[in-house]
Amino acid sequence: MAQRLIFTNDVNRELAAIVDRLHPSSLFLLTDTNTSRMVRPLIDLSATHIVIPAGDEHKNIDSLQHVWQGLQQGGATRQSVLVNLGGGVVTDLGGLAAATFKRGMRFVNVPTTLLGAVDAAVGGKTGINYGGLKNEIGVFAEATDVVISTCFFSTLPSTELKSGFAEMLKHALLTGSDEFDRLLDIDPERLSPENLLHRLQVSVMVKQRIVEQDPHEHGLRRALNLGHTVGHAFESHALACGRPVPHGYAVAWGLVTECVLSHMMMKFPSDTLHRLAAFVHLHYGHFGITCDDYDTLLTIMRHDKKSRQGEINCTLLAGCGDVRTGITVAPDDMCVAFDIYRDLMGI
Amino acid sequence: MAQRLIFTNDVNRELAAIVDRLHPSSLFLLTDTNTSRMVRPLIDLSATHIVIPAGDEHKNIDSLQHVWQGLQQGGATRQSVLVNLGGGVVTDLGGLAAATFKRGMRFVNVPTTLLGAVDAAVGGKTGINYGGLKNEIGVFAEATDVVISTCFFSTLPSTELKSGFAEMLKHALLTGSDEFDRLLDIDPERLSPENLLHRLQVSVMVKQRIVEQDPHEHGLRRALNLGHTVGHAFESHALACGRPVPHGYAVAWGLVTECVLSHMMMKFPSDTLHRLAAFVHLHYGHFGITCDDYDTLLTIMRHDKKSRQGEINCTLLAGCGDVRTGITVAPDDMCVAFDIYRDLMGI
Repeated sequence: MAQRLIFTNDVNRELAAIVDRLHPSSLFLLTDTNTSRMVRPLIDLSATHIVIPAGDEHKNIDSLQHVWQGLQQGGATRQSVLVNLGGGVVTDLGGLAAATFKRGMRFVNVPTTLLGAVDAAVGGKTGINYGGLKNEIGVFAEATDVVISTCFFSTLPSTELKSGFAEMLKHALLTGSDEFDRLLDIDPERLSPENLLHRLQVSVMVKQRIVEQDPHEHGLRRALNLGHTVGHAFESHALACGRPVPHGYAVAWGLVTECVLSHMMMKFPSDTLHRLAAFVHLHYGHFGITCDDYDTLLTIMRHDKKSRQGEINCTLLAGCGDVRTGITVAPDDMCVAFDIYRDLMGI
Repeated sequence: MAQRLIFTNDVNRELAAIVDRLHPSSLFLLTDTNTSRMVRPLIDLSATHIVIPAGDEHKNIDSLQHVWQGLQQGGATRQSVLVNLGGGVVTDLGGLAAATFKRGMRFVNVPTTLLGAVDAAVGGKTGINYGGLKNEIGVFAEATDVVISTCFFSTLPSTELKSGFAEMLKHALLTGSDEFDRLLDIDPERLSPENLLHRLQVSVMVKQRIVEQDPHEHGLRRALNLGHTVGHAFESHALACGRPVPHGYAVAWGLVTECVLSHMMMKFPSDTLHRLAAFVHLHYGHFGITCDDYDTLLTIMRHDKKSRQGEINCTLLAGCGDVRTGITVAPDDMCVAFDIYRDLMGI
């Protein structure tokens, strides 16, 4: 059963139609404390409401158990439906809760952040953090429906918007230069909801096409890892140093670094790299690293979930839309790429 | 990727071949405290050993976390393999741990009880008990390989052997009268390992064929629920009353009661019913119930995971091998069936 993707600015009408079609024995709504306050009042849905604390630090086994208990106490059956209304934490954790409750009940994702819409709500990755590792526990399970709307984004802080926009940049790089050029012409903080919904539709469909061809991440799907080997390392290192950065910002800097590697190893065009770097520098600033950080970053990358036998593994590009997955990068090459990243970012 | 079923009395050779083929980045072995002592010494496998406490009361979130932590501390990756060596608790819980670790690592099941071999190790059902409900949390996930051997059974108590044999009776009823006749000629406590391995192979293949056609329990697979609507009710009621009964015994009594219903509603042959009842009475004794227990049993059946809208739902038989799934049974009919069950069991 394929996941349905719905792009709309009338969320309530679409949700009513979905509930009508899924005909659940009972309906549950999951939010976090933020979306409970900001978004829940906009949604016209009669459902048992479960609330988890907001924040990635609560994407854990305690919140997962809280959802299981809410489902159990509300009398959920395999014919019930859980609507996940929130950012990536809510859709990831709610998806896992539903996928494991009585060996699987249906769920609907309604992402309320740009990052959630472009990245987390589609693709069937569910999970929680465990033992200090991100998304260590989870399954692949698709929502029956994903309702994507920009109507929730008006109250988002600009860091949130830019975080999501970084994933859109990634999808554009994966698909071709036209969409990439279009995005670079945009100021991510000054997009009209209609224009954003259209760009978002293009972006999400890039991911959806890739996921459909490789639902369990055996091959092609690793394309979506572009920017993330280095991005995750920046993010983890920043967190460990007590100066956390938004996920999307880390991805933006990761994209620059991995496009440097792509240029070094795959002849990715120099002018595209420079335009990307300038855009990222302008809108995201930079993540300041020195040579002293290189060893730590290399170690983190060797322990990435996607690495094999301690090698550093990246998705690289021979050009916009020309993707090479599973490329092993030598530590020395990575250090050269860090040097060039620092030059490009004026560090 | 289809699950491989291997029937053997040379477990070590087969395990070596499996490890060779799966080529894991690292190997983990899960046992409980019983199989750690009784069975682990027989297995020639170099692996990081994780042990959970034995018993259904430990089929819970704490043991699940213990396995996750063992995998994490042992540096398991998505390319690692977990071998579950034990009864149904170990294969169910180990399967869930593997299926959710980093969104899924491979696992191999080596059932060490007859019940585990015939029922739990095949079919992709993983799970733990939660909030007082059996298998409330779980996923459908298949082992890459299931190694079935009777060499572990020589030390099993006879209640364990008979528990497993009840599921074999169920499979025989689902497949046809020849295998059913063959089983009724057997004394389940006096089977040679070779004869048992052969009967077991026939029995497991019945389940495997059904599961292959309906992996996620949408239709046909409900056939496997034969005997279990009533059996689970007996088991839960017995537990609540502080006089727990083995699962397989409850299934045996459930089979008798549901064959009574099948006779009442579907003209299941009377002589087959009587032969089944006599066999069950001889080898399993009876579960003593009175009219005062009927209401409690009906309530439990209405809350069964497979029930819809509080109706009582059974798999029934129009004859051996002639299966009707999803039959709604009126409470009054169920009470009549309880009456006849009591007559047949001499209660």
